[in-house]
Amino acid sequence: MANITKKVSWSSRADESGATGEGTPLLNGSEQPRHSRQLSEGRSIFQIGRLSTVDLEEEITSEEDSLRGRPKEIPHNEKLLSLKFESLDYDNIENQLFLEEERRMSYMGFRCLEISRWVVCGLIGFLTGLIACFIDIAVEELAGFKYQVVKENIEKFTEVGGLSISLILWAVLNSAIVMIGAIIVAFFEPIAAGSGIPQIKCYLNGVKIPRVVRLKTLVVKVCGVICSVVGGLAVGKEGPMIHSGAVVAAGVSQGRSTSLKRDFKIFEYFRRDTEKRDFVSAGAAAGVSAAFGAPVGGVLFSLEEGASFWNQMLTWRIFFASMISTFTLNFFLSIYHNKTGDLSSPGLINFGRFESDSVAYNLYEIPLFIAMGAIGKSYFILFFTRYVHRPCLQVMEAMLVAAVTATVSFTMIYFSNDCQPLGPEHTEEYPLQLFCADGEYNSMATAFFNTPERSVRSLFHNQPDTYNPLTLGLFTLTYFFLACWTYGLAVSAGVFIPSLLIGAAWGRLFGRLLAAITSSGSIWADPGKYALIGAAAQLGGIVRMTLSLTVIMVEATGNVTYGLPIMLVLMTAKIVGDYFVEGLYDIHIKLQSVPFLHWEAPATSHWLTAREVMSSPVTCLNRIEKVGTIVDTLSNTSTNHNGFPVVVQVTGSDEPAKLCGLILRSQLIVLLKHKVFVELARSRLTQRKLQLKDFRDAYPRFPPIQSIHVSQDERECMMDLTEFMNATPYTVPQETSLPRVFKLFRALGLRHLVVVDDENRVVGLVTRKDLARYHLGKHGLEELQLAQT
Amino acid sequence: MANITKKVSWSSRADESGATGEGTPLLNGSEQPRHSRQLSEGRSIFQIGRLSTVDLEEEITSEEDSLRGRPKEIPHNEKLLSLKFESLDYDNIENQLFLEEERRMSYMGFRCLEISRWVVCGLIGFLTGLIACFIDIAVEELAGFKYQVVKENIEKFTEVGGLSISLILWAVLNSAIVMIGAIIVAFFEPIAAGSGIPQIKCYLNGVKIPRVVRLKTLVVKVCGVICSVVGGLAVGKEGPMIHSGAVVAAGVSQGRSTSLKRDFKIFEYFRRDTEKRDFVSAGAAAGVSAAFGAPVGGVLFSLEEGASFWNQMLTWRIFFASMISTFTLNFFLSIYHNKTGDLSSPGLINFGRFESDSVAYNLYEIPLFIAMGAIGKSYFILFFTRYVHRPCLQVMEAMLVAAVTATVSFTMIYFSNDCQPLGPEHTEEYPLQLFCADGEYNSMATAFFNTPERSVRSLFHNQPDTYNPLTLGLFTLTYFFLACWTYGLAVSAGVFIPSLLIGAAWGRLFGRLLAAITSSGSIWADPGKYALIGAAAQLGGIVRMTLSLTVIMVEATGNVTYGLPIMLVLMTAKIVGDYFVEGLYDIHIKLQSVPFLHWEAPATSHWLTAREVMSSPVTCLNRIEKVGTIVDTLSNTSTNHNGFPVVVQVTGSDEPAKLCGLILRSQLIVLLKHKVFVELARSRLTQRKLQLKDFRDAYPRFPPIQSIHVSQDERECMMDLTEFMNATPYTVPQETSLPRVFKLFRALGLRHLVVVDDENRVVGLVTRKDLARYHLGKHGLEELQLAQT
Repeated sequence: MANITKKVSWSSRADESGATGEGTPLLNGSEQPRHSRQLSEGRSIFQIGRLSTVDLEEEITSEEDSLRGRPKEIPHNEKLLSLKFESLDYDNIENQLFLEEERRMSYMGFRCLEISRWVVCGLIGFLTGLIACFIDIAVEELAGFKYQVVKENIEKFTEVGGLSISLILWAVLNSAIVMIGAIIVAFFEPIAAGSGIPQIKCYLNGVKIPRVVRLKTLVVKVCGVICSVVGGLAVGKEGPMIHSGAVVAAGVSQGRSTSLKRDFKIFEYFRRDTEKRDFVSAGAAAGVSAAFGAPVGGVLFSLEEGASFWNQMLTWRIFFASMISTFTLNFFLSIYHNKTGDLSSPGLINFGRFESDSVAYNLYEIPLFIAMGAIGKSYFILFFTRYVHRPCLQVMEAMLVAAVTATVSFTMIYFSNDCQPLGPEHTEEYPLQLFCADGEYNSMATAFFNTPERSVRSLFHNQPDTYNPLTLGLFTLTYFFLACWTYGLAVSAGVFIPSLLIGAAWGRLFGRLLAAITSSGSIWADPGKYALIGAAAQLGGIVRMTLSLTVIMVEATGNVTYGLPIMLVLMTAKIVGDYFVEGLYDIHIKLQSVPFLHWEAPATSHWLTAREVMSSPVTCLNRIEKVGTIVDTLSNTSTNHNGFPVVVQVTGSDEPAKLCGLILRSQLIVLLKHKVFVELARSRLTQRKLQLKDFRDAYPRFPPIQSIHVSQDERECMMDLTEFMNATPYTVPQETSLPRVFKLFRALGLRHLVVVDDENRVVGLVTRKDLARYHLGKHGLEELQLAQT
Repeated sequence: MANITKKVSWSSRADESGATGEGTPLLNGSEQPRHSRQLSEGRSIFQIGRLSTVDLEEEITSEEDSLRGRPKEIPHNEKLLSLKFESLDYDNIENQLFLEEERRMSYMGFRCLEISRWVVCGLIGFLTGLIACFIDIAVEELAGFKYQVVKENIEKFTEVGGLSISLILWAVLNSAIVMIGAIIVAFFEPIAAGSGIPQIKCYLNGVKIPRVVRLKTLVVKVCGVICSVVGGLAVGKEGPMIHSGAVVAAGVSQGRSTSLKRDFKIFEYFRRDTEKRDFVSAGAAAGVSAAFGAPVGGVLFSLEEGASFWNQMLTWRIFFASMISTFTLNFFLSIYHNKTGDLSSPGLINFGRFESDSVAYNLYEIPLFIAMGAIGKSYFILFFTRYVHRPCLQVMEAMLVAAVTATVSFTMIYFSNDCQPLGPEHTEEYPLQLFCADGEYNSMATAFFNTPERSVRSLFHNQPDTYNPLTLGLFTLTYFFLACWTYGLAVSAGVFIPSLLIGAAWGRLFGRLLAAITSSGSIWADPGKYALIGAAAQLGGIVRMTLSLTVIMVEATGNVTYGLPIMLVLMTAKIVGDYFVEGLYDIHIKLQSVPFLHWEAPATSHWLTAREVMSSPVTCLNRIEKVGTIVDTLSNTSTNHNGFPVVVQVTGSDEPAKLCGLILRSQLIVLLKHKVFVELARSRLTQRKLQLKDFRDAYPRFPPIQSIHVSQDERECMMDLTEFMNATPYTVPQETSLPRVFKLFRALGLRHLVVVDDENRVVGLVTRKDLARYHLGKHGLEELQLAQT
């Protein structure tokens, strides 16, 4: 019977919740196994209306009805939701210890905390700015050296012949540099691959991605990104800044480094998920701010991608971190560029200054801009899924791509005959003469023989006739395929700059063609404008941000005149793009099967209630529980639950047990480690009581249960959970609709939500995975399968 | 005994909640009057730890203890919290009718709804833009006419003598125009006075301000603001745009006008507080966007001031409305200015284009900027509290101010001897020669004899030596006092422009003095830069926005170069300002005793639990209740409750009643009006069932209970509330700490939060006023008194 197989698949989904799978023997302190089982069986059914009295026969009938009646409502497709990801606790665990600490704290104490939050944010901004500065200078110096060597070599061999030697030199240099970057990523810290933005999105959403905010990740990321960019790959250094900022934030705010085993004994109050998340938001914003010189854009990025509850004070702190970050970067870069104190050209990528003409664009250009917006979409998915998983092969692949990039670039330059006169105020850093006449340079080389940031700038600002249309067309195509192939390599790199570059190239091509068609010349004269719009369209089509990206683009161009067209273009790119496929980061997250919670529950999910969504039956603990039971519960590897409702039984009565709290696995582990047993309490009156500090010291890497030794005698002891459990967990009745449950869960950043009946007895538990399972597909509401991997 | 008097004052605070005051006889369907009364008496106590078993004697002891022990913790001062304001329901009322409708709706239905939301936002933007355009053109034309008349008159009498006639003409013209504006505001719609921003803040926060989003308010506001600006008062036309946008949004989204008695039968789905609020946010953003040409700033304003739950889709819609609004305004203004299609100079106020020099500012100027930020503070409060309440007097006062403004301006111009050469590219619209030599004009007149918008622009952009320091100093002082006096008059007007003008004046003065001191001339040469910074500092000190104001200023200047210093200045202004006094809008809200919920609960409020905060005992209704009881409950004018928990008694058992739902006064009134009685249901089987539409038709102006006639026979009928109540209200246990309650309440936009014991019995109800009462004062946590007015 189909029903059975379905149930088997359910039984595997138990991580994170306190629900037992099939065959798990536990249901402590709750005398309602039959009732719960019923509910469990009725869980995946859509029921019209509500069952007020649960009756076994009646429910089975309705279940069969619904299975026959609407078989297509939730087709079980191959899409999966991984169980390996844990959640973060973005709701404060208000147990007695916490409340006592808060109550002891004076008003001045809170003021000091607030001030230290500002200090931490300032530090985050400063360090993020420094890192950005380091990356920028390193790339500048190393790439400058590389291009100089290759240029001299090319110049030498252009006259005497034998340019293939130059090609080999270029390819070998690139491959060697990329190899270093790929090795450290593939062998030391695979999580540092890519831009890290999807990971940070997940973290801010409340999903714990292992090792994502560690110091080692940061080091690998920074070195990796320098190697990738210097190695000439079609990548940018901006995306990884966001990840770097987030790691800096997670590190600084905790006042210690677990990797370095250093604890500075400061900021101990911030050692919990709630506070850490706020700082990570600030770090991500500081990263954007440093990357694009866009402090407001950074704040908006953090909010658009991350935060759910908008808090004014938090926003201001994030803003402060962003500001400091831009400021630091600008200041040090101004020293590096020998213009100390000039803070007017911020950011890693600088689009250069668009001159503000009084008539920058006109009304009839708007439809053209919108049409361009519709073109920019996420084509990257073509090459997205990769099948190379072994580190050695990953390194080889990266080297291959680097070599191919050099070869293709060289070929394009070699066969190009687009020569341009070398003006007195030429902006090219490494103009290649090649086969051009004296006083001229190869225009294709400006695009290929350059860091991508400079190429973008020259596409925006060079004289209208700098590039001929053929050059632009070829460049767009080749660079597009290179970027697609490069994306997903095991190197640290961002996708912002390649997208901008491709967009700028076809945008400029568009502008050139338009000028050729209309041949009026005067108003269409500036293809740089179309390059900017094209860049916005391409980037918007790929990352699908609107508000923050508009602000970032406006801040990076240093001119709000183009604000309106950029907005229109990004909006169009988003709407058109969403019709076809999701944004790149969302695809990434989906392919990883991350239980990501979107902003709202699917529109058509009012059918579902907490009863159907929840996991049940639930493993409950008694308020005073036997140590042995706790150890067994925690050791059960098949379930691996993280939260347990605590129930209380009125002594001497046969009434069912009522919910009185919620306790986490991590808390239980700390309690077991410190042997907080009732029997021992008497014998160690002199010993100090367990404090919040003990939990903070163990945060965030709580030991596994296997590492804690509990003797046979100790197993018979009792543990009193009263002081440590969250005595006021949020609860919902069984009839609550899914959107309502979702809203509560998302708005408060919950990890566990207890479902109770009208007698306040536990009947189920809703966790992130229970909610993330449902999503809108092509055929209406769909349910994802849960998988252990 | 002090306790008694305290209780008397409590008894008056019952509005909005289902709590009975002293002497109210009701407690239907709940058998725990004594228990509840106990809790009621213990409500205002701070208790350390928690009382697990409630016992009368024990509690009284602890109450007295706490009264003796910490008398200063909550001193009852004269600050009040008004009971006359009702809350809005920003949480969906999920009753059976609602759920059935949602479940009936297909996926396509939701798509259509989503599309119509976008359409509504587009309409809001378009109409707001049109209104802004109308105001701008009207002001331009009328003010132009006025200044032309006065100018000609002055020129006539300058030579022949008798300038006092010009003065009288000017003063009379001003007074007459202002009179019209003051009359319509004072007599027809007093809520249209001022900028309306505090009112919109309250609305978005969830407080219902009567008549704030009506059509009549809009008409009066628009006409009023035109009269005030044309009448030469020290006011701006930007603030009221935000209110206007909000009214447009509230009107358009409902698809009908109650004032005009027109129902277009569209957008019926949006006829509830939740949806309406989203559109009002969009309207406010569109207003900012039109006023300052700052679409991103508009979105940020809405979010910073209003929204608590940030939703990506909502943000995009708000952004769309903002964009359309700027676009519409620009387009129509470009036609008006005979530059059709030129969209580059947006907004009602345009700061003009700051030329982007490569070295716009330097590092050592930063401390100066910060110092300037510290100067700008809210001095307006000096004249804030007004004692003129009779409409006639209000009109007279407004006329007086208008006449005085003209007189003072005239005097200043008359005695000024700051003559400047009239350049060939002079930007002054109405240059007054007065006693200057031919080819010169009076510089003081540029500042006074002009609309404030133009004055701001000339302070920003005129040549460095245009104004001499004396002129600037005098202007700052006079305009400051005029602005203070003007603020709070019964006219529609904004405070943005006067603040900018004052700030620009002293900023420019600062720049001039600096140039004089350093006398290096080259880098300090541009006092316009300091004018901009001064304007930002002054405005920031008054309205205390940081993020949104930064973006607004950047968008209005059309140049991001000054982004960083503006940020620094606004941040400093905010920090320094908050140390002394709250922002202007917050002061306004506080003086009105509005129960405004801030972002977070006061830091030191962990002492308090739901038990102490809640109102109790609660008037509960049975699920099947007698009509007479309901009518009596609703008619009780001394309590005037708006929400009632619904309880159910297990038949034949003596167990206490359990919570099963929550019903609102407005719903009960609709039920009574349609006579949905159990006894009548049988006799009218052919009659249609009550639908959600009936509730929507009655929204938002539900009739008072007095207008509904219920006969003596009908009083004996029964009403079944099952279908209409919200069956899954959010609940918290009594031990929940105030911050936790606050977070739940604020994040979800609740109106009523039921407090239950561990048997799921109602023990209290938390409403907005219960939470808004607590705030941080000079002496720690303070509690506001509740008052009926």
